[in-house]
Amino acid sequence: MFRVLARATGSAARLGELATPHGTIRTPAFVSVATRGTVKALGADDLRGLGVEALIGNTYHLSLRPGAETIASLGGLHGFTGWTGPWVTDSGGFQVFSLGAGKVHGVGKLATMFPGDAPAKREGESLVALTEEGAHFRSVVDGSRVFFSPEEVVRLERLLGADVILPLDECTSPFHDHAYTRAAMDRTHRWAERALAAFAKTKGLGPNPGQVLWGIVQGGAYEELRRASARTIAALGFPGVAIGGSLGRSKADMLRVIEWTVAELPEDRPRHLLGIGGVEDILAAVDRGVDTFDCAAPTRLARNGVLLTLAEDGFRIAIKNARFARDDRPVEEGCDCPTCAQYPRAFLRHLVQTGELSYYRLATLHNVRFMVRFLDRVRTALAEGRPASSSVLNP
Amino acid sequence: MFRVLARATGSAARLGELATPHGTIRTPAFVSVATRGTVKALGADDLRGLGVEALIGNTYHLSLRPGAETIASLGGLHGFTGWTGPWVTDSGGFQVFSLGAGKVHGVGKLATMFPGDAPAKREGESLVALTEEGAHFRSVVDGSRVFFSPEEVVRLERLLGADVILPLDECTSPFHDHAYTRAAMDRTHRWAERALAAFAKTKGLGPNPGQVLWGIVQGGAYEELRRASARTIAALGFPGVAIGGSLGRSKADMLRVIEWTVAELPEDRPRHLLGIGGVEDILAAVDRGVDTFDCAAPTRLARNGVLLTLAEDGFRIAIKNARFARDDRPVEEGCDCPTCAQYPRAFLRHLVQTGELSYYRLATLHNVRFMVRFLDRVRTALAEGRPASSSVLNP
Repeated sequence: MFRVLARATGSAARLGELATPHGTIRTPAFVSVATRGTVKALGADDLRGLGVEALIGNTYHLSLRPGAETIASLGGLHGFTGWTGPWVTDSGGFQVFSLGAGKVHGVGKLATMFPGDAPAKREGESLVALTEEGAHFRSVVDGSRVFFSPEEVVRLERLLGADVILPLDECTSPFHDHAYTRAAMDRTHRWAERALAAFAKTKGLGPNPGQVLWGIVQGGAYEELRRASARTIAALGFPGVAIGGSLGRSKADMLRVIEWTVAELPEDRPRHLLGIGGVEDILAAVDRGVDTFDCAAPTRLARNGVLLTLAEDGFRIAIKNARFARDDRPVEEGCDCPTCAQYPRAFLRHLVQTGELSYYRLATLHNVRFMVRFLDRVRTALAEGRPASSSVLNP
Repeated sequence: MFRVLARATGSAARLGELATPHGTIRTPAFVSVATRGTVKALGADDLRGLGVEALIGNTYHLSLRPGAETIASLGGLHGFTGWTGPWVTDSGGFQVFSLGAGKVHGVGKLATMFPGDAPAKREGESLVALTEEGAHFRSVVDGSRVFFSPEEVVRLERLLGADVILPLDECTSPFHDHAYTRAAMDRTHRWAERALAAFAKTKGLGPNPGQVLWGIVQGGAYEELRRASARTIAALGFPGVAIGGSLGRSKADMLRVIEWTVAELPEDRPRHLLGIGGVEDILAAVDRGVDTFDCAAPTRLARNGVLLTLAEDGFRIAIKNARFARDDRPVEEGCDCPTCAQYPRAFLRHLVQTGELSYYRLATLHNVRFMVRFLDRVRTALAEGRPASSSVLNP
């Protein structure tokens, strides 16, 4: 299912192939975020044209609307959404965190999203009650009570029919102490075992009998816990492993978490880093042995007027800037996306200035194609035995 | 430039071809509305794929943002927008009307948009001062003073570079009396002469030396005035004529206005009906000798959840309806648009329910393709000597 094809010299990076029932993912790969079944502003035809490897949907959002049973009745995500390539579904663990501890502590994946050593000012009251059984919360759609157990999440994901599914986990925040982080990790491990049992028991349910369940490593930014979690999840025999939860308070913390985790994982299984997608982060993580990524940033940035390019510092331009008003160049010289092929920067600036809906698609097409081309360069470097970091620094 | 290829028996309908510097428009044709340079939610690649014949932009909106000089510096609308096929630009006369008498009377093109025999309750104060020289108004973008004369509008349209441009006219409302409507018509005729003179004088200005200026017939729903206006505009020698302004208080009024106007127009010139695009209206107008149409309704309806289909009463379905929640059929059986080819109705309903941006494009793709296919059927009927009305009633 996962094959390592080549390794880079002086790096833990691997070039690989991950076979799924709906196509093979070339790794390292960026998985585009399609929370509710669509990459925002794009269609499935767009995604095919852009060379996207795979999509990741969200069990929490899709089960609330339109409902996992509805999607199953239409052939699962592959039949329902028009994207017939590989699908991943996240479990909803991160959404449970966002409504709970993430809300109380005012943080996302990295505390640095809200800099400082203490929880940010944006804390609120938890909308989640976590028990050993699972997570009780209110639907954001209609306020009704929802219960997510490891078993229920597997059942929902069976119905959604993604090729790779992830179990319910408990994410922690960088402001959780060692004791809490350890307790949450232990619970995540017990939930992982329950998810595996539920997955075996539900064989045959849903539209995609070939789907596989990967494990999720937790443990926050504590070395001892991350290593223990990686060993435990690996020992449970999952065919792939995702690195979840808090990655610490800085980029340096994040890289250490990746190093500790990867050191304990088997060489022959693919490794996914949840929710990370910056250019430098991907380069550093690939060179530390991560194979796949997902992140909402490229598409969210596009909608907010930020277009990605390797030609500029920080890898981005703000297309609303007045200096683009009469700029007849494409967003990125040499880019082969439909947007760069057809429109000058001045037109994109006009569309974003006037609030035209067309803008969102044209901007998103570019940023998604940017990620595809960027990962192409990374894979080319690895195929030539060079580390990922060489793919951008020496273009 | 305009050739009539065939005529239907027992109808004034013509099958034709309108050659422009950027391609030939097969008539009868529906011109898609791209007010600010884009069909809302679509890209130029989408429009090519859908078989769209031509686009109509708006001089008023485009000259305020991003400015006609900016667009000229980028090669005109053809270079700026990515749509390299035929472009038409409306003059802004209707926007002047919307900010003036249309606002005071609370009406659009037909009084029936706000039923009743008196001006609707939505009247407001005019934001326009009309003089013999032209129209003074405030920019909706930044509140600055703007002056549109017939000469200035021609200059702006030269810079925009559409293939067919329209002169500044004064639209009237169905609640204007005969005396006012006559005075406005006479002024429109004087403006038409000034526009022709300005057009001759600006030869060579802008990116599209092959562009042509059509005339606009006014006269409200008064037979004597419509006939007089059609004769006057025809006598001025315009290579094509648009029917503008108030079309009365009912569909019956509209059809009479078309009949009076067409009866006075030369056989060898194309005729455009401004702002009309319903299925039944197009059929009736084609059979009365109209060649081209434009209307924002198909794309606006799409964004509001209304999808067009010949298979249903009223030619539409409301995709938000709960009955589509698990409907695995395409929007319209037999439709070859990218949306019908890829997605079940249930997915479109999910996208509109959850407010996904992707929805707007997928819905608009269908409705625009619907119009293209509908006009294909109309042309096929005419080529076979049948009237347009037979193309839908006897599919």
